[in-house]
Amino acid sequence: MRGIKASDIAALCQGRLVGPDLELKGLSGLKEAQPGFLSFLSDPKYAPSLPGTQASCIIVPQGTAAAGKTLIECRDPYLGFAKAAQLFYRESNPRPKPGINPAAAVSPGARIDPSATIGPYAVIEAGAEIGPNTVVMGPSFIGASVKIGSDCLIYPNASVREECLLGNGVIIHCGAVVGSDGFGYAREGAKYIKIPQTGNVILEDEVEIGANSTIDRGALGPTRIKRGTKLDNLCHIAHNVVIGEDGAIAALSGIAGSTIIGDRLIMGGKVGVIGHLEIGDDVICLAYSGVTKSTPSKTMLYGNPARPHMKGKRIDAAVDMLPEKLKVISDLEKRVAQLEEKLGIKHGEE
Amino acid sequence: MRGIKASDIAALCQGRLVGPDLELKGLSGLKEAQPGFLSFLSDPKYAPSLPGTQASCIIVPQGTAAAGKTLIECRDPYLGFAKAAQLFYRESNPRPKPGINPAAAVSPGARIDPSATIGPYAVIEAGAEIGPNTVVMGPSFIGASVKIGSDCLIYPNASVREECLLGNGVIIHCGAVVGSDGFGYAREGAKYIKIPQTGNVILEDEVEIGANSTIDRGALGPTRIKRGTKLDNLCHIAHNVVIGEDGAIAALSGIAGSTIIGDRLIMGGKVGVIGHLEIGDDVICLAYSGVTKSTPSKTMLYGNPARPHMKGKRIDAAVDMLPEKLKVISDLEKRVAQLEEKLGIKHGEE
Amino acid sequence: MRGIKASDIAALCQGRLVGPDLELKGLSGLKEAQPGFLSFLSDPKYAPSLPGTQASCIIVPQGTAAAGKTLIECRDPYLGFAKAAQLFYRESNPRPKPGINPAAAVSPGARIDPSATIGPYAVIEAGAEIGPNTVVMGPSFIGASVKIGSDCLIYPNASVREECLLGNGVIIHCGAVVGSDGFGYAREGAKYIKIPQTGNVILEDEVEIGANSTIDRGALGPTRIKRGTKLDNLCHIAHNVVIGEDGAIAALSGIAGSTIIGDRLIMGGKVGVIGHLEIGDDVICLAYSGVTKSTPSKTMLYGNPARPHMKGKRIDAAVDMLPEKLKVISDLEKRVAQLEEKLGIKHGEE
Repeated sequence: MRGIKASDIAALCQGRLVGPDLELKGLSGLKEAQPGFLSFLSDPKYAPSLPGTQASCIIVPQGTAAAGKTLIECRDPYLGFAKAAQLFYRESNPRPKPGINPAAAVSPGARIDPSATIGPYAVIEAGAEIGPNTVVMGPSFIGASVKIGSDCLIYPNASVREECLLGNGVIIHCGAVVGSDGFGYAREGAKYIKIPQTGNVILEDEVEIGANSTIDRGALGPTRIKRGTKLDNLCHIAHNVVIGEDGAIAALSGIAGSTIIGDRLIMGGKVGVIGHLEIGDDVICLAYSGVTKSTPSKTMLYGNPARPHMKGKRIDAAVDMLPEKLKVISDLEKRVAQLEEKLGIKHGEE
Repeated sequence: MRGIKASDIAALCQGRLVGPDLELKGLSGLKEAQPGFLSFLSDPKYAPSLPGTQASCIIVPQGTAAAGKTLIECRDPYLGFAKAAQLFYRESNPRPKPGINPAAAVSPGARIDPSATIGPYAVIEAGAEIGPNTVVMGPSFIGASVKIGSDCLIYPNASVREECLLGNGVIIHCGAVVGSDGFGYAREGAKYIKIPQTGNVILEDEVEIGANSTIDRGALGPTRIKRGTKLDNLCHIAHNVVIGEDGAIAALSGIAGSTIIGDRLIMGGKVGVIGHLEIGDDVICLAYSGVTKSTPSKTMLYGNPARPHMKGKRIDAAVDMLPEKLKVISDLEKRVAQLEEKLGIKHGEE
Repeated sequence: MRGIKASDIAALCQGRLVGPDLELKGLSGLKEAQPGFLSFLSDPKYAPSLPGTQASCIIVPQGTAAAGKTLIECRDPYLGFAKAAQLFYRESNPRPKPGINPAAAVSPGARIDPSATIGPYAVIEAGAEIGPNTVVMGPSFIGASVKIGSDCLIYPNASVREECLLGNGVIIHCGAVVGSDGFGYAREGAKYIKIPQTGNVILEDEVEIGANSTIDRGALGPTRIKRGTKLDNLCHIAHNVVIGEDGAIAALSGIAGSTIIGDRLIMGGKVGVIGHLEIGDDVICLAYSGVTKSTPSKTMLYGNPARPHMKGKRIDAAVDMLPEKLKVISDLEKRVAQLEEKLGIKHGEE
């Protein structure tokens, strides 16, 4: 891998180069960095550790000083770091060569763009379409009539079942399942009668599905995750859920059937949302919350059952004092009884 | 796909055809339906939307009127819809052709029924038996001496480990694992000494295991899920658990080792059950509950720790008022002190 | 399989053989055992069931009597059972023959020890190293430059992504993912900008990762699980987490990014730990807990939010009484008002 110039990184980050330009070998934490490496400081409170780092160049907030270092001043150093990291990553991880591995099972009825890469033991069924520069690693499964756009990355042991649609720049991590049957049954007496799930899943551009997460297909019509929304590992999205754009859902969270969620959702880990709710835009659900009610936009939820954040925190604080307060109640009962006795009132009289 | 006659669907649903018979192209929601399609109305409160639908035929509760439409009157329209949907699904999704894909690794010691279908990159080990009409999609893994009955469907990236037994009509969704080791160790000082898990998993007829769910094999003897029980995605069933017939367990739920559960369990999402419990028949665990005690039949549980449903809800309501009530307690303390002062009682005196 | 002598098992368990030596066919529960089988009694309270068992030999606590049986007296019968079970298991499950299955896709740049076994449809990429006696079952994925030590077992449908390092005796269960991308983004306006996760995962000797669990690679630097720690199924370990030695984490638990945990962690099922915490040695988190704070060594946590165990349990008990206590508060309010009236005090006066 060839080095990357500090000035090129400054340009990419819309930052200002302070000090001599130099060629950088890679990206590293401030503490771990070796000479020749780029590092970053996103929180000014860590500025005192700057003199100790071996890094030759550091992305810093505007107005940071560090003698003898080349600095890249950035309005948002963390964002600058992300962009620099993408550059280094692309440089050191060139995409695999285009072509279909001879040990892939590609149906004659599938259409694979010549610039796409299909790995060994990938199964691609009839009618599937794989777009330009998309990489499907194997072993994996792409079902019949699936359409995958350009620049997608399907990791090993992932499954994308029939009829699902993926936009451009979608990433499906190892073991994730897109298009599994929704959990839908009618009952005939005690018996469950399976309702075939004939919808599909639509993942719009730049959606990312974490390892071993599962996205169920709709019962009728699609389950849809809109542009730019990112799911962490082991999440479950049930049939006919809709999640808006630019959301982020942390691991082990689940959203039950037909719930509709707006844009810019932020969901901590291990959150649950029951079915058939409407959740507005810019909603934040803190970790471990159990959402049971529809929620307007710009709400922060906390707790189980989830309540508006401040109320949830007040309840936690109150519960924390409860054992002490129960003693106060017992004490009050005795004192009131004593007062009543003194005044000749029988408890219970009006 | 050829169309299906409304009269045939009426017969299947044990319903009554009202209006002219016609040939139907498919099934759709009331709002989305095109002419020539079948739809359904399960809740009479949506009857006002009937005149607006483009659907040509609708499955409805008895006594529903809709001018110009062919109706199928049904005692249970949702069940009728399920059966019609199965009919359409079979018609448009004929099972794949029987036979073993040349790119499947089938051990010479395995017995595959000639009517079964084995997909590319399926691994089927020695002594395994695959019954009539069963489909094993690849990539996937069927371990040594596994017995799978007739009409089963094993989706890609599923694993069924050695010695496990599946009845007829069992569905294993993508990425599910049947027969992983139970989590069993003895301790020698601080070290965990693995206890080989030598039992297996028995899935009876019509059991369905959701995507990426895991069913551990017994330590000694089987883990068993009885006829007709359905598991959603990302559920965990530990070693030596027994779950009765006709149960349903929603996503991200887990049942710890050796717990025995009766028939017709209904479990919401994200429920936990600790080990070594006995749970009766017809138990309902609402979403997010954490079950910590054995439970008699016909109980509805709620909360964490789970309590009888009504008590759990009363506690939620009480907790909701707690911050207000703590103020009342503080106020009462002051008022009682004032009363005591007036009467010359020192707080704490008897 | 040939039988195993009771005297050999006694030696293995450092136990004392009482009664005639005999050859044993296998291991079984006390109730299920057939003649010729070994069983065990770890809890003396079950001693009354000893006369009823058909087992020919029983591992028992010191000082247990059972007429007509061969006994193996052990200081820790459960540990003795574990060791005997390992012996029987190895006897009846010889490791598969060494060699690379012709239907495995092993990169020419990978180094496979001649004593290792690579199954059909395993993908092993360039620069990967597989150590002596390690078994990689297929279908599965071992990424570029992965190093796997000796005596490891990689089950089907597992994924180990590029650069990850596994020690000796590591077990990766079906569907588990090691080295998936950490969930890391910077924001540019509303959009998430992916931060390439360039660290790896290090699993030290004797680590075991349960079915469908996911271990994310570090953002920079490793995610590390130290020697002997065992994870159950469907657990999530986020980027740059460190877990100490000899820990055990039950199913459906998740640990968020950069949290550092000491040795001998015991975590029940469905526990969550938020990111950037420091958790000491010998910490126990009871099932369903939600850990939100750093925690010193030798602490037992319970509840959500997690509190020291005794406090958590007191709070549960207090909450349980809360609906009753709210009635007491209402009653006290009336009684105090009556007292105030009698004494001519207006509520609210000082």
